[in-house]
Amino acid sequence: MIKETTDIAIAPDGASYPIPAPSELQADFEALRARAQAHRARGGKVVAVQGLGFVGSAVAAVIASARNADGESAYFVLGTDLATPQSYWKVARINAGEVPIPSPDEELTALIADGVKTANNLAATTSEEAYALADVIVVDLPLDVEDRFTETLQEIDVRLRPFESALTSIARQMRPDALVLVETTVPIGICERVALPLLRRVRSERGIEEPVLLAHAYERVMPGPRYVDSIKRFWRTFSGVDSASAQAARQFLSSFIDVQTFPLRELHDTNASEMAKVLENSYRAVNIAFMYEWTLFAEEIGVNLFEVVNSIRVRKGTHDNMRFPGFGVGGYCLTKDSLLAQWSATKLFQTDVELTMTLDALRINHRMPLHTLDLARRLAGGNLDKTRIAVAGVSYLAEVADTRNSPTEVLVDEMERLGLDFVASDPYLARWEERLHVPVAQNLDEALAGAQGAIFAVPHREYRTLTARELRTRAPHLRFVIDGFDVISDETAAELHAAGIKVAGVGKGHWHKLGFDK
Amino acid sequence: MIKETTDIAIAPDGASYPIPAPSELQADFEALRARAQAHRARGGKVVAVQGLGFVGSAVAAVIASARNADGESAYFVLGTDLATPQSYWKVARINAGEVPIPSPDEELTALIADGVKTANNLAATTSEEAYALADVIVVDLPLDVEDRFTETLQEIDVRLRPFESALTSIARQMRPDALVLVETTVPIGICERVALPLLRRVRSERGIEEPVLLAHAYERVMPGPRYVDSIKRFWRTFSGVDSASAQAARQFLSSFIDVQTFPLRELHDTNASEMAKVLENSYRAVNIAFMYEWTLFAEEIGVNLFEVVNSIRVRKGTHDNMRFPGFGVGGYCLTKDSLLAQWSATKLFQTDVELTMTLDALRINHRMPLHTLDLARRLAGGNLDKTRIAVAGVSYLAEVADTRNSPTEVLVDEMERLGLDFVASDPYLARWEERLHVPVAQNLDEALAGAQGAIFAVPHREYRTLTARELRTRAPHLRFVIDGFDVISDETAAELHAAGIKVAGVGKGHWHKLGFDK
Repeated sequence: MIKETTDIAIAPDGASYPIPAPSELQADFEALRARAQAHRARGGKVVAVQGLGFVGSAVAAVIASARNADGESAYFVLGTDLATPQSYWKVARINAGEVPIPSPDEELTALIADGVKTANNLAATTSEEAYALADVIVVDLPLDVEDRFTETLQEIDVRLRPFESALTSIARQMRPDALVLVETTVPIGICERVALPLLRRVRSERGIEEPVLLAHAYERVMPGPRYVDSIKRFWRTFSGVDSASAQAARQFLSSFIDVQTFPLRELHDTNASEMAKVLENSYRAVNIAFMYEWTLFAEEIGVNLFEVVNSIRVRKGTHDNMRFPGFGVGGYCLTKDSLLAQWSATKLFQTDVELTMTLDALRINHRMPLHTLDLARRLAGGNLDKTRIAVAGVSYLAEVADTRNSPTEVLVDEMERLGLDFVASDPYLARWEERLHVPVAQNLDEALAGAQGAIFAVPHREYRTLTARELRTRAPHLRFVIDGFDVISDETAAELHAAGIKVAGVGKGHWHKLGFDK
Repeated sequence: MIKETTDIAIAPDGASYPIPAPSELQADFEALRARAQAHRARGGKVVAVQGLGFVGSAVAAVIASARNADGESAYFVLGTDLATPQSYWKVARINAGEVPIPSPDEELTALIADGVKTANNLAATTSEEAYALADVIVVDLPLDVEDRFTETLQEIDVRLRPFESALTSIARQMRPDALVLVETTVPIGICERVALPLLRRVRSERGIEEPVLLAHAYERVMPGPRYVDSIKRFWRTFSGVDSASAQAARQFLSSFIDVQTFPLRELHDTNASEMAKVLENSYRAVNIAFMYEWTLFAEEIGVNLFEVVNSIRVRKGTHDNMRFPGFGVGGYCLTKDSLLAQWSATKLFQTDVELTMTLDALRINHRMPLHTLDLARRLAGGNLDKTRIAVAGVSYLAEVADTRNSPTEVLVDEMERLGLDFVASDPYLARWEERLHVPVAQNLDEALAGAQGAIFAVPHREYRTLTARELRTRAPHLRFVIDGFDVISDETAAELHAAGIKVAGVGKGHWHKLGFDK
């Protein structure tokens, strides 16, 4: 983590943070070491959280908020991340008492500010030596695959190396009796077949022969207005590589999760809990993909699929999670977790299991955003040359500034490939981390001003309240509108149609039937 | 419906009913006509229910139980079915005040007895003239496809002819202002594109030119202990071909469904409600198939998939309908409804929509029962020759005497094809309607006595309570047991293993890991 040059780290919102010199970083850490040791001297415990992304930063804040029976901070929490241009801004922001990635959940903002500024038990560092101080080390690193949309099983390439190297850092530093708790979504079998042997080997080189305490407890974090709830007040499943590990994990998780309301679920082994995570996300991905083929059907025969799905969802417990038609699905998990599972079946366990339906779903979901382009082409009379299209919505979730694997990415890549003219816009973003060359207008009006067409790709609140009159005023040249995510009401669609603007919508077959696309 | 010879109709439980001569049937009907007319003279309405199978007989009984504001029977209900060896027994049984197919729901038994014997407003007939008496004609005919497990789209062959001919009977007889209410699960578009033109044409030949009242209101009947609830106290979706039809359907449905608790859902057109039915069943089928590939995975890597699914199902509203691993899926609906949808897309609407994932699910579900044979083969050392296998469970649902598209059918067909030795058994069946040549022992002991292997294919209560000791006593030659549907506990499996009997189970990877199959 030691860097020789003074680089600058840039956050998604454009703010920049110079990376301090190694000596400064070390001095920062020494101060933290003293505070951690003081906390331990008072009978408290120390927790290190490895990785300060969407999950790790929130998890660190929640752990820091835990109180013991006397109402004092149960833990001194050290978040760690790298001193690199890609990562250092997270360390800087947490140490300033700020949420690294702005969140609509005020509780998260408050927890971080409180931990850093008031309770003084939350800090971030770039030093690996943090692990040497910890009673519990929580692993919240990302673990990704090389190409998410690979067509054949053989090509799935899990980037295991960064994960292994992070675990090696831990093993080199950790106290012999510390618990390593993996929260990262991993391929099934990683704890038992990769992490455990690695920790044993490196510890053994240090002369530590006592059993490793290693557990897996996947998170169900959902960025959004209930961010903290999704960690603290939600179901948590865990498992240990042996009963001592499971017991240590149970005790630790119980100290910051509301286990009265959400009792912990312990599974028999780490393979089981690792499978639970990727299975539950695969289930979601399959149910989304399933709706896609019915969307095409409903549109063709003039059926309002939203009305149909709503009528089915009354069946509580069997059908109430049926998905609505939409523009696409993005985010860090649903687009890749099934690939981790298949990789595990093929590479780690060397079985001939093929998760055919599960992987089909990922491919279907990946292609889904292109459907709006088909609709646009149809409304434009078959040709989108010389047609400027406003792409409204870049993030992958409504009202959240998160562009990880955004479905808009797929649409925009295809528009670029075809040489089409478009302007992307999103009220929650100043820049697009994964597509830095694509400018993003925060104000929709900028995108609409010169546009002949508009595609609504995210159901941001700001779009859902737009009236036909507002749309026409802001986009005087508008000829067609594609509603990708149930943003436009039937009434607005009718008004647009009456004003000579063609309208089509994903799953809105009734609009076709009413001739709104004519 | 007029037959010249005196045939005999045989019910699934083996009881036989001679079919009366045409003159007798006509005399029976004349008596009913007089009673229906008397009911109308008192201000009551008459309902005809076409088709007295699993759905129609229960629907007729529920409608007959409706009371008007004065507490009197709202309707005189005439159920109709054919005077054929395949169907007449249903007519005879209803007129004897009995449920045609025995049901664990005592409310259904009581409703039929009450309607026929006490309230005297429920009867069955083979005469088409019943439709001439009716204010509402409810269509509850089966509508099937020729081959449920066709591999290519082109081959799906919906048996439309019997449905069209039944509608023609109605059109020839019906009062001009009667409502035709289709409850049958039909291919999307049938009401608008087939039923409506047909009714118009035949009525026109009779000189009736006023608009047809035609509506669609699919049922969600579930044979089992809450049979009546599934009709009377459950959500119902409907639609009409025009607003007068929708209004008439709303009024009729409200008279016998608990719409206070379960408000009716009206959809915009019949295409929409027809789609709702096949979509909701396709969703179920896809979710079942999805679990199958994860079952194979879990077994291979030693994971207890039941434990995993249980830990995921705590997520109410998003994951609580995740299916458990199982032997297979059967019944009349889930095995075919998706085929109706695809046929509709291809043949009726001539679109190029392909419900790929949906149809894959049907094929996966169809093959699923064969997995237990793979497990049996593995436990028997690769060869099942000279091994008698007890197949425990023939019906498609626990504790229900219903063999329609039972998954056991697929297993037994394959065992026959391979020339394997097996004995089928089911405590709820005396004979197997779809496989009359396969004897079914009602007493499991008969099947177990000479068996070296056992496959549990249905989670009947009688199997779930079996102990290891009972199994060993009843099956002294037993060498292996396959648990297809979570019938055997971990403890029983361990006891069997300890006694030298190999054990494997669908989704029970932990048994493999523990060496129960060794």
